[in-house]
Amino acid sequence: MPSGMLESALDPASIAIVGASDNPHKVGGRPLLYLRRYGYRGAIYPVNPARREVQGLRAFPALADLPEVPELAVVAVAGDEAVHAVEACAARGVKVAVVMTSGFGETGEAGLAKQNRMLAAAKGSGMRLIGPNCQGLANFATGTVANFSTIFHELEGTDGPVAIVSQSGANSQAIYQLVREKGLGVRHVHATGNEADVTVAELAAAVVADPGVRLLLLYMEAIKDPVALAAAAEAARARDLPIVALKAGRTASGQRAASSHTGALATEDRIVDAFFERHAIWRAADPHELVGAAALYARGHRPLGRRLVFISNSGASCVMAADYAEQRGIPLAQVPSDRLRSVLPAFASVDNPIDVTGALLGNPKLFADVLPAVGEHAQSELVAVGLPVAGTGYDVEAFARDLAAFEKRYGLASALAAPQPSVREPFMRAGIATFGREREAIDALVQVADHAALLRRPAAPPPRAFPPAEYGTLDEAASLALLAQAGIAVIEHRRCRHEHEVVDACRQLGAPVVLKGCSRDIPHKSEARLVSLDVQDPVAEFHRLRRRIGELGGWFDGVIVARKAPKGRELALGARLDAQFGPVVMVGDGGIYLEALRDFRLLLPPFTAAQVIDSLSALRIAPLLRGVRGEPACDVAAFAAMAVRLGDAMLQWQGRVGAVDINPVAVFETGALALDALVESYNFSR
Amino acid sequence: MPSGMLESALDPASIAIVGASDNPHKVGGRPLLYLRRYGYRGAIYPVNPARREVQGLRAFPALADLPEVPELAVVAVAGDEAVHAVEACAARGVKVAVVMTSGFGETGEAGLAKQNRMLAAAKGSGMRLIGPNCQGLANFATGTVANFSTIFHELEGTDGPVAIVSQSGANSQAIYQLVREKGLGVRHVHATGNEADVTVAELAAAVVADPGVRLLLLYMEAIKDPVALAAAAEAARARDLPIVALKAGRTASGQRAASSHTGALATEDRIVDAFFERHAIWRAADPHELVGAAALYARGHRPLGRRLVFISNSGASCVMAADYAEQRGIPLAQVPSDRLRSVLPAFASVDNPIDVTGALLGNPKLFADVLPAVGEHAQSELVAVGLPVAGTGYDVEAFARDLAAFEKRYGLASALAAPQPSVREPFMRAGIATFGREREAIDALVQVADHAALLRRPAAPPPRAFPPAEYGTLDEAASLALLAQAGIAVIEHRRCRHEHEVVDACRQLGAPVVLKGCSRDIPHKSEARLVSLDVQDPVAEFHRLRRRIGELGGWFDGVIVARKAPKGRELALGARLDAQFGPVVMVGDGGIYLEALRDFRLLLPPFTAAQVIDSLSALRIAPLLRGVRGEPACDVAAFAAMAVRLGDAMLQWQGRVGAVDINPVAVFETGALALDALVESYNFSR
Repeated sequence: MPSGMLESALDPASIAIVGASDNPHKVGGRPLLYLRRYGYRGAIYPVNPARREVQGLRAFPALADLPEVPELAVVAVAGDEAVHAVEACAARGVKVAVVMTSGFGETGEAGLAKQNRMLAAAKGSGMRLIGPNCQGLANFATGTVANFSTIFHELEGTDGPVAIVSQSGANSQAIYQLVREKGLGVRHVHATGNEADVTVAELAAAVVADPGVRLLLLYMEAIKDPVALAAAAEAARARDLPIVALKAGRTASGQRAASSHTGALATEDRIVDAFFERHAIWRAADPHELVGAAALYARGHRPLGRRLVFISNSGASCVMAADYAEQRGIPLAQVPSDRLRSVLPAFASVDNPIDVTGALLGNPKLFADVLPAVGEHAQSELVAVGLPVAGTGYDVEAFARDLAAFEKRYGLASALAAPQPSVREPFMRAGIATFGREREAIDALVQVADHAALLRRPAAPPPRAFPPAEYGTLDEAASLALLAQAGIAVIEHRRCRHEHEVVDACRQLGAPVVLKGCSRDIPHKSEARLVSLDVQDPVAEFHRLRRRIGELGGWFDGVIVARKAPKGRELALGARLDAQFGPVVMVGDGGIYLEALRDFRLLLPPFTAAQVIDSLSALRIAPLLRGVRGEPACDVAAFAAMAVRLGDAMLQWQGRVGAVDINPVAVFETGALALDALVESYNFSR
Repeated sequence: MPSGMLESALDPASIAIVGASDNPHKVGGRPLLYLRRYGYRGAIYPVNPARREVQGLRAFPALADLPEVPELAVVAVAGDEAVHAVEACAARGVKVAVVMTSGFGETGEAGLAKQNRMLAAAKGSGMRLIGPNCQGLANFATGTVANFSTIFHELEGTDGPVAIVSQSGANSQAIYQLVREKGLGVRHVHATGNEADVTVAELAAAVVADPGVRLLLLYMEAIKDPVALAAAAEAARARDLPIVALKAGRTASGQRAASSHTGALATEDRIVDAFFERHAIWRAADPHELVGAAALYARGHRPLGRRLVFISNSGASCVMAADYAEQRGIPLAQVPSDRLRSVLPAFASVDNPIDVTGALLGNPKLFADVLPAVGEHAQSELVAVGLPVAGTGYDVEAFARDLAAFEKRYGLASALAAPQPSVREPFMRAGIATFGREREAIDALVQVADHAALLRRPAAPPPRAFPPAEYGTLDEAASLALLAQAGIAVIEHRRCRHEHEVVDACRQLGAPVVLKGCSRDIPHKSEARLVSLDVQDPVAEFHRLRRRIGELGGWFDGVIVARKAPKGRELALGARLDAQFGPVVMVGDGGIYLEALRDFRLLLPPFTAAQVIDSLSALRIAPLLRGVRGEPACDVAAFAAMAVRLGDAMLQWQGRVGAVDINPVAVFETGALALDALVESYNFSR
């Protein structure tokens, strides 16, 4: 159980520092400085052949000279020396080695070769290797601050509910700083660098096991081990620990930049979205978004819904909040106006957003008077207070006390937005989540609500990738047959190889019919003019299609005679195997512009029909599914059931099907039918 | 010329304060405090019947007792007393009265009646009225700080290049504060409150005339006088003064909140976008966005393009910047790598984003070495520097000097992003625009570039609204004829009232044809089954359509026999008269889901074909217009020319045409044709 060993990384009994420096502001000196400053209680062994003492501690010439086997070793020497140090650690039985120095895998072939030698030494002895090219570890609960970042010198470490695990050292510091600015303490700050061995996911799992952590923030440029990350995330879900992650390298340019940075692998970004959602990991777009809701998480808020109440002493803020809520689709709670009417000035707005008006200056009780009306109303779920103006003459301390008491009494997630730091400060002191910008406060509240809904979902199994294989295209009739076998409703049809079969099929199906020439060698029938929609003479058309396939040089797999489906909305449903994440199901707008317009979402099976319906409601064409211009709503439930079956089938096929493309699926007022299908498979008879 | 009189508001020779208070922290006391603190040089006349002296100045019992006619009067008394004060000001010949007190139009009918009495008194004597319910005026160049906001007490006013004109007093303070936090001085801060008379647009015009202003920020919840705002904006464009505006009340909820706030009128929000773009006003979404680029504007940057260079000492920041640029469609400049290669470490990325790596810590010259390679390269237009880590050991002062020297030497708009205020501070001192968040720095740079492109466009005439009228629907043949007359290419067709005309039409047009039953009473032909696309027997179809119109009880205006157009991409083109903004042209995705999917943009005529093409490129279906899946690109130029003609025609029709709906316009590889049209008009023979 390798990740269990990482407990040694977070709370080792003893630490050796290879390349320990007497200068506390060098890479080899800073861990020593920090270990002592932050109260590490185990034994510290500086290793430095040139000195008898380092920063007042007895130094040892070599690892072999230590009086005991250190549980953790920090390697702060460079190049081949680092390789030898790692080999020595492995030989001596060190549990975890943290290699801080750079100049390895990130620099090119020669560096990678050195890195691989370190890795081999570690693997050979069962030692775990963190780095190289990493800033190190920091656990402020145990004082294990084996880290060379300058930030813990500038910004005194304070134990708290937040943990940070980051591939990038620079980013771990930036994130740390942003969390601390929110008035929160941070327990863990770990950076994994080149990840020759230990990944963000593994360290995340170790941190999840720490019961003092109430929020885990991750930064990564590649998801190297989805199974490990899924396991960490499910362990976190099991103990109701939210994870927010920043996965950079979203776009082609970002992936190019990432590959020059930490050698990250390219992954289709929407699969990452699907993977995170499946495992209740909230995805942030940048470091500010990553930490935005930290104070709300740290207070343990798990709102049951996302209905917002916005209160301000500025009418303009109320207008802008209403705009923003509508634009983002955030529902405003309907707070009963009679109660508000009795406390607010006659000209105040008693709708939500609630404008307590400038009268707040003269009457500081106004705020406390309004809050119970909000707290006692069942619809209120999230409360944002905007105080764009609250300087001299305003009793801001009282407002902060009032809001803190309100939050405590009613348990509603609450946030304060004010541009003035002096206004935010008393609220922060009272434990309220504070923001400079009103929309950031609203975003954070809604995020915590939506994330709580993900966390309430049942545990999801880890993704299951299948070994790569060569796939061949099934002809359409075989494709439809396979899907029908999997429980997917397909258009009624017959495969006809002979004229008499066409006659029989038409008799059985009735007019009108659609004919499609079928050849395993010609997957794209429309472009090849093998689809006939307006068929007057089916037999003549059969012969034309057979000739056409011959002209194109394809194998004749017959002609499909299909019932012509009534008009429905055309969606697309697909699936493929991702090398890392295994089966992935796509739901989206149908038609030939799927790739150009990219109006689709991905899901990782198994998933529920409700999740499919959620995904559909995020499509740009979602309004059309609800029925517009007098058209009936589409039976999205039928489509969702079909998508669930396809996802389940992809799992059951265990890698035998590489891709499925059902485009279109016609979705009717009642029911849905696969009209066209293309399956790539092996191990099925064609 | 009423707005000229507002010079009196910004630099009056004398000021009376009606309701002057000895307490400098009351509404009637604070203007006195500020006028003296901020060096107002004119005469100040406190008016207060109860005191001989106010804040050490001689007080007068009534306006009539003053030794001269004050140029400006501040009214700080309430209710009927305020009305009487305004009447007295008007009678005495005061030029501008600023009514600070609330309790008027914003409170309901009774308050509105009082407000109207003030307005009548002002109009009667030619006096301009600012407010009521307004925070007042502040001009730190002349010391005219006739304002009761607390903010100028908390945050010392400093004259500078920025001006703020806001409907909302609270928001004027919040915006002021945000600008000051950017290290910039502010010259003007004016709030207009209820706008019984003077609007944001008029005060904006007065501020534009101040040559010391280099950036004008506006906040409003309604555009009450588009013509005045257009005039102010064009005066600003003429002297290269950028205006950034926050127009709240974007959505239905926001407009409801606004109407309870300042009685703002509802305007379709996309018209506001079009209006702003036409007059080179940049639109911001919230106060933070409003001030985001202020420092770049204040330095006079007008970039010629939006190609970005991003430089950081964090690889992670480079990855995230590349992601963000690609996601927003911001091009990255191609900086030649040979030059970078010679100064950067071997393992550094020499692509843009440029990762100078952690080596910057040991070698602070690295930054200065990289900059010339960026500055001397022709593609570089915008430069963002991200320093997520730059604490102890980093020579941040040197970096700030280097970037300031670079900006000065090469004239490239440059910005610094760093989460640590201590890192931002030296850059801000050196005059660099600084940001906490990297994407905000990038947004601000791109905004200034895009805004500069708008400012370089030629002046646009003000919008021209036409008086409301009753319009009737033209039948389709008449609609097409009117459009053809306006120079719009329409599908070749004949209106046939008799069988023999159908035969002639078919002979002339050749097969295939489309038939459409034409009735002024039945505008929606498809729903009424009056469109026949697959016509085998045109004469029979003619009779069927005539019967059908009869069954529906419509007037028979003939049957259109039209050439069947080849397949093209279907766009929509429309126009209507807006009560406030006059003619508005819509370009968008065609088909029946225009309203449901809202994939369209609005333009105010006259506009150029290039502007139409810009609008099309912002549509979601834009990729399809460029040609996908082997399809040719669409002739967007032909469509754009058609849109320009429609816009020009709407102006020439001078209100006689109320609405035009051309859906679809078929756009081919070459050319475009209006296939269906519906015109609402009066004063045309039907």
